[in-house]
Amino acid sequence: MKKGRILTGHRPTGRRHMGHWLGTLENWRRLQDDYDCFFLIADLHVLTTSFDKTQAIKENIVETVRDWLAAGLDPLRSKMVLQSAVPEHAELQLLFSMLVTVERLERNPTYKEQKKELHLGKNASLGLLSYPVLQAADILVYRADTVPVGEDQLPHIELTREIARRFNNLYGGTFPEAQALLSPTARVPGTDGRMMHTSYNNSIPLSASEDEVRQKVLSMVTDPLKARAKDPGRPEVCSAFALLKAFDALFPVTDNFTVESVEEDCRGGCIGCVADKNRFADAYIKALLPFRTIREKVPPEVIWEILASGTHKAREVARETMGLVRERMSFTHAQLPI
Amino acid sequence: MKKGRILTGHRPTGRRHMGHWLGTLENWRRLQDDYDCFFLIADLHVLTTSFDKTQAIKENIVETVRDWLAAGLDPLRSKMVLQSAVPEHAELQLLFSMLVTVERLERNPTYKEQKKELHLGKNASLGLLSYPVLQAADILVYRADTVPVGEDQLPHIELTREIARRFNNLYGGTFPEAQALLSPTARVPGTDGRMMHTSYNNSIPLSASEDEVRQKVLSMVTDPLKARAKDPGRPEVCSAFALLKAFDALFPVTDNFTVESVEEDCRGGCIGCVADKNRFADAYIKALLPFRTIREKVPPEVIWEILASGTHKAREVARETMGLVRERMSFTHAQLPI
Repeated sequence: MKKGRILTGHRPTGRRHMGHWLGTLENWRRLQDDYDCFFLIADLHVLTTSFDKTQAIKENIVETVRDWLAAGLDPLRSKMVLQSAVPEHAELQLLFSMLVTVERLERNPTYKEQKKELHLGKNASLGLLSYPVLQAADILVYRADTVPVGEDQLPHIELTREIARRFNNLYGGTFPEAQALLSPTARVPGTDGRMMHTSYNNSIPLSASEDEVRQKVLSMVTDPLKARAKDPGRPEVCSAFALLKAFDALFPVTDNFTVESVEEDCRGGCIGCVADKNRFADAYIKALLPFRTIREKVPPEVIWEILASGTHKAREVARETMGLVRERMSFTHAQLPI
Repeated sequence: MKKGRILTGHRPTGRRHMGHWLGTLENWRRLQDDYDCFFLIADLHVLTTSFDKTQAIKENIVETVRDWLAAGLDPLRSKMVLQSAVPEHAELQLLFSMLVTVERLERNPTYKEQKKELHLGKNASLGLLSYPVLQAADILVYRADTVPVGEDQLPHIELTREIARRFNNLYGGTFPEAQALLSPTARVPGTDGRMMHTSYNNSIPLSASEDEVRQKVLSMVTDPLKARAKDPGRPEVCSAFALLKAFDALFPVTDNFTVESVEEDCRGGCIGCVADKNRFADAYIKALLPFRTIREKVPPEVIWEILASGTHKAREVARETMGLVRERMSFTHAQLPI
């Protein structure tokens, strides 16, 4: 017996990196044991910020699913779903747009942030404003009750709950009030110590070659006061140590060192930063092996078959939901035999 | 060879009245000779203002199509299309929402008017704001090049043209820049002299009984200075005369009077207002006969068959358009074999 149904997903914006893996993918992998999982490739959401750069999306979908598979997401147990291939997302979003005010959406912190960050001013698109309504449709079209998210997404889950309540009050109980499931992993630091993020140019891609991983790890910022190997170091200011801790929290390091022994060695001046980073890199390279293998072994056509199969199953659920929605709204006529 | 493709339609909000007939339906009927016509039952648009009163929509769809048939719209030559049964409207609206700014939509005069008239204040819904984008999708999903509208709709056609241009510029020529075709008929006056409008309670329904037509016409406001039959009257201040003129412009009265003879008789004090209105009522009752006949003869299941057939044909065009759209946007992956 499953605990519930999960909807979560990624925008296909390129290769996943260690931040995605440690921050979300490993969490999703584990949730598959207890939940009926729908993993969404949210390609329509890419358009809210990149409507003029659509050529890369198709390739990015393949890369994203490849990394999902390598991270242990299992297409036999979970459904990998292509958003744009399920028109019910757009249909439900349109219906939901009647139930939410413009003023409510303009108060959404992500909208305000993105308007500012992208210097949009008066150029913010309707798609950007209504993005959380599409997200609510993404979740509720599968009647998912659980949404694993980061803290920045909590306002969107709150809006999803509001929309579900409003619909249920107006037309009768149809949707669950989805709960956010906060990811247990802390933010994963990038090579410069800031949060790992594709656009910060501080990430270690899951598909990086051995050389690339080592070079990235060796470039990480360590304690500037530990100039020589024998100087005592402060692990708490070292981004390489912070990444090791995030990694170890999910994949405990046990080979020939532990987080505790690293910390002790560093403080005691028993080992230099380069030697430390080299052994961290060894651990990552080993852990990332499946990512490179899958990348080599799974051809695009298999990715598309996996997506077609998951999307097919998901669409049955979406159709069922829309049938319910139409019944509740007295819109059964929308199911003309055409 | 047709001159082009028309998209126009009605919200299914109840029975059509003489204002709809003389103002639009007779015009649409004539356009069927020269254009490939798509007549849309815009049931999703009803939700922008009446999302909490959906029970009546299904019955109103039947009534609307009945009146269309009676007015001479021909399901064999034209397509009668049910908006909510064609998910491509919602899909295209979602894509278009990326190409239009919130600020542009907030400048739309209809939005500002409706916000004020319905006292919405901060409660204006996203659906109301984005309504003209759905309208653009309604038109462009069939790549219609001609839209017969009233003057109040011109700003929406302008937005449709902007969206088409923006899409074409970004992704390559796909959509025509639809032209508005202004209706040749002037505003049709209601029984109180204001424009005939369902919500003004001044309309003569096309399906009115003989008694109802006569009673409505007899209630019309005439020249207050013509107290007795022999007093000279001023047709220019008489709402009954104004309606007769609008009627005559499309269906010339020739039986035993003409607009000219009525005007002359009135000014000369040769006839009283009641006698005049009675003979106008006779003409309307005769002209409205098909509306009552059709209402009695066409059962709902035939209406649904007509809608299913028109919607089926329309959907083929809509699918073709979405195929083109996806190709242009490099979104061909959205056509997964599911």
